[in-house]
Amino acid sequence: MMITEERVSLKHLLTVESLSNQEVLGLIQRAQQFKHGDRFKPWHRPMMVANLFFENSTRTHKSFEVAERKLGIDVIEFDTKTSSINKGESLYDTVLTMSAIGIDACVIRHSDEDYYHQLIQSNTIRCSIINGGDGSGQHPSQCLLDLLTIYEEFGDFDQLKIAIIGDITHSRVAKSNMQMLKRLGAKVYFSGPKEWYDPKFEAYGHYLPLDELVEEVDVMMMLRVQHERHDGGTSFSKESYHQQYGLTNERAAHLKPQTIIMHPAPVNRDVELADALVECPKSRIVQQMHNGVYMRMAILEAILEGKA
Amino acid sequence: MMITEERVSLKHLLTVESLSNQEVLGLIQRAQQFKHGDRFKPWHRPMMVANLFFENSTRTHKSFEVAERKLGIDVIEFDTKTSSINKGESLYDTVLTMSAIGIDACVIRHSDEDYYHQLIQSNTIRCSIINGGDGSGQHPSQCLLDLLTIYEEFGDFDQLKIAIIGDITHSRVAKSNMQMLKRLGAKVYFSGPKEWYDPKFEAYGHYLPLDELVEEVDVMMMLRVQHERHDGGTSFSKESYHQQYGLTNERAAHLKPQTIIMHPAPVNRDVELADALVECPKSRIVQQMHNGVYMRMAILEAILEGKA
Amino acid sequence: MMITEERVSLKHLLTVESLSNQEVLGLIQRAQQFKHGDRFKPWHRPMMVANLFFENSTRTHKSFEVAERKLGIDVIEFDTKTSSINKGESLYDTVLTMSAIGIDACVIRHSDEDYYHQLIQSNTIRCSIINGGDGSGQHPSQCLLDLLTIYEEFGDFDQLKIAIIGDITHSRVAKSNMQMLKRLGAKVYFSGPKEWYDPKFEAYGHYLPLDELVEEVDVMMMLRVQHERHDGGTSFSKESYHQQYGLTNERAAHLKPQTIIMHPAPVNRDVELADALVECPKSRIVQQMHNGVYMRMAILEAILEGKA
Repeated sequence: MMITEERVSLKHLLTVESLSNQEVLGLIQRAQQFKHGDRFKPWHRPMMVANLFFENSTRTHKSFEVAERKLGIDVIEFDTKTSSINKGESLYDTVLTMSAIGIDACVIRHSDEDYYHQLIQSNTIRCSIINGGDGSGQHPSQCLLDLLTIYEEFGDFDQLKIAIIGDITHSRVAKSNMQMLKRLGAKVYFSGPKEWYDPKFEAYGHYLPLDELVEEVDVMMMLRVQHERHDGGTSFSKESYHQQYGLTNERAAHLKPQTIIMHPAPVNRDVELADALVECPKSRIVQQMHNGVYMRMAILEAILEGKA
Repeated sequence: MMITEERVSLKHLLTVESLSNQEVLGLIQRAQQFKHGDRFKPWHRPMMVANLFFENSTRTHKSFEVAERKLGIDVIEFDTKTSSINKGESLYDTVLTMSAIGIDACVIRHSDEDYYHQLIQSNTIRCSIINGGDGSGQHPSQCLLDLLTIYEEFGDFDQLKIAIIGDITHSRVAKSNMQMLKRLGAKVYFSGPKEWYDPKFEAYGHYLPLDELVEEVDVMMMLRVQHERHDGGTSFSKESYHQQYGLTNERAAHLKPQTIIMHPAPVNRDVELADALVECPKSRIVQQMHNGVYMRMAILEAILEGKA
Repeated sequence: MMITEERVSLKHLLTVESLSNQEVLGLIQRAQQFKHGDRFKPWHRPMMVANLFFENSTRTHKSFEVAERKLGIDVIEFDTKTSSINKGESLYDTVLTMSAIGIDACVIRHSDEDYYHQLIQSNTIRCSIINGGDGSGQHPSQCLLDLLTIYEEFGDFDQLKIAIIGDITHSRVAKSNMQMLKRLGAKVYFSGPKEWYDPKFEAYGHYLPLDELVEEVDVMMMLRVQHERHDGGTSFSKESYHQQYGLTNERAAHLKPQTIIMHPAPVNRDVELADALVECPKSRIVQQMHNGVYMRMAILEAILEGKA
């Protein structure tokens, strides 16, 4: 796949599906340049980014923050617990405030799906929105870092066999990944509990038994069981989930030599995958977190470079 | 009104009434210079400011933080929720600690009126105090940014007609504004619920019916209904407050062409003013937030420039 | 005692007992250089430190943060209250994430004693650990700043008489201080409630009546009554503790002219020592906080300078 010389420029980053393949590959290429030591060019004026995380986060939040600092951006942390949100101020008015005080872009994680619609339609709000996760909706920066990690490993997406395993219905990143991977030429497969699988995923790949997939695929993409998005009624014990749908040590023994294991983290150790596999040679979980910083640098640059 | 060439220098900023007219105008002028692109001169040594917000805040807190970063100040955020306050440490001992570790100035918002008295009398505490709001007392930086917004619009305060509407008794900024505006030559009027009006305000202006004021004044300064400062016993529904004391679309239609609408925010939309008015051409609410950053730069500079 | 020219270099700082006398004196010397205006040399690459405080803290947390900023380090604040800790992520996986996103060192305070064992044994975690307090275990940076404060005062530890008074069993710093002070040649004495005294402390010094000690020692090191570490069952009223084991104004009158008063703070005023003594001329409590910044600069430099 050809990679363009032209730098990607974005107004917002809300969903990954709105990016062209060329833009995705452009961001991957730029992230790789940052990873290989490319220093950012100083901004033509000081840039300011606010991080607004209305849901708990370690990786996404701190990874964006590290990326911002590496790019020499002034970072404004917004603490929902001590803000005027507690006086009833809306998300819209909060972002309007950020815009008014000169924030160039807001990274937002919020429990409402599509929380950003009103924000980007405003004539008054001038700051760009970078979606750090919306409810059970989208998580574009996670999808892009996953794509970077796969691309880095295999150099191409064409005909790659990728299994997405687990709590697909509640996963923000699974839905993006299945669409993007298919569009980029990969073959997607699914497995996991049938109650967390939706027939509409068939548009992107097929459901197969887990034990069949472990012997076939190039990428085992395990999804987190999102206890916090279930209403307490998960019908599995940790042990039974692990035995039925987890990557056990036994199953891992059947993976092909070049196959890699991915997981967006935080991992429920001994649930989605065996404790010992998290940091095993096949695992790219630490690498995914590491790549997340460089992908977010690429995203931030694509958003900010066009700012007047 | 003449504006001096001399730069304002302050030890603390606790109340706005303690400033001379000359100092107020000096700060307004300096804020305008910052707004028009004046870059700060680098400090003769690194400066460090701590933000201690014991009450919820978005605008004041983040606006100070943006101002600090624009001035190249090292910002220390103090999180009351994870501090030794929870081990029973007093405000005095907290600020004593800030002073001991080398903080040059503390921006403090606290629910106690006059919380700062003990702090400024200490022989040991050496850091300057910038009052970011004390209980129902003062909120000097908000008053100054309001004055900047009015001055920017009209070029003078003399004979300007300004209406302050709403929850005056609980408003930190209303009390400062009425005093300062009168001192600077403006004519102040009041309206709103009689139970939130105190006869002592008569020293600064007169209470008039709202429908009379909308046709007369140059500035409609709407105040937030501070649900969080009432003991649950507000006797108005949102709708009845809006109809009786709010700036409805109907009332706004009677404003003079040059009249501007102000509000310290967060706005209770459709309570103090109609939703559609918040971002209408007459509104200066976004402008107030924008100006807040530049006024706080002027304040911080006036406080820090004299530091050894 | 000879002080070496060689700069101290550390992989982690977990306990102070693991430092040689030479290293302790090297850190003291370096902290004094920072205090007397020595500017740090710019790092050969940008350095990033994360502060992970799982227990309430003002002094230690903010003092480390000020030290980090003075050293030109990029600071990442980790807020336990809005992190994935709330989704059940472990300390190990949190620090693994910090390492993966490029953090060079983590300053950690945690309620578990020896929380760091698993972290330093990991082959994947590459960031250094600086112990900011582990349960009732260690608090090495506090011990080192105490040693700096004593050294600064007396120029030597040899034959210095130092009393450690109060809640010794629950004090992280008391245990480090008694061992280090003895090793450095000082004579250690103890006093306070017998129920908070452990016979194993006899290895480092002797228990004596408080009124005897006040007339004899060079340093009165008062310890905080740690209400938060007792299970509600403290048998003393504040008044009775103060009268029996506190440094009252009356007792302070018997101190030798050169004797200094120390306390790790936050002080329970009128419990461990009389309110008026906290900022009296003999008190080094403010000085301890001030010295804490310089000692932490020395620690951070010793940790980071060796980083590739």
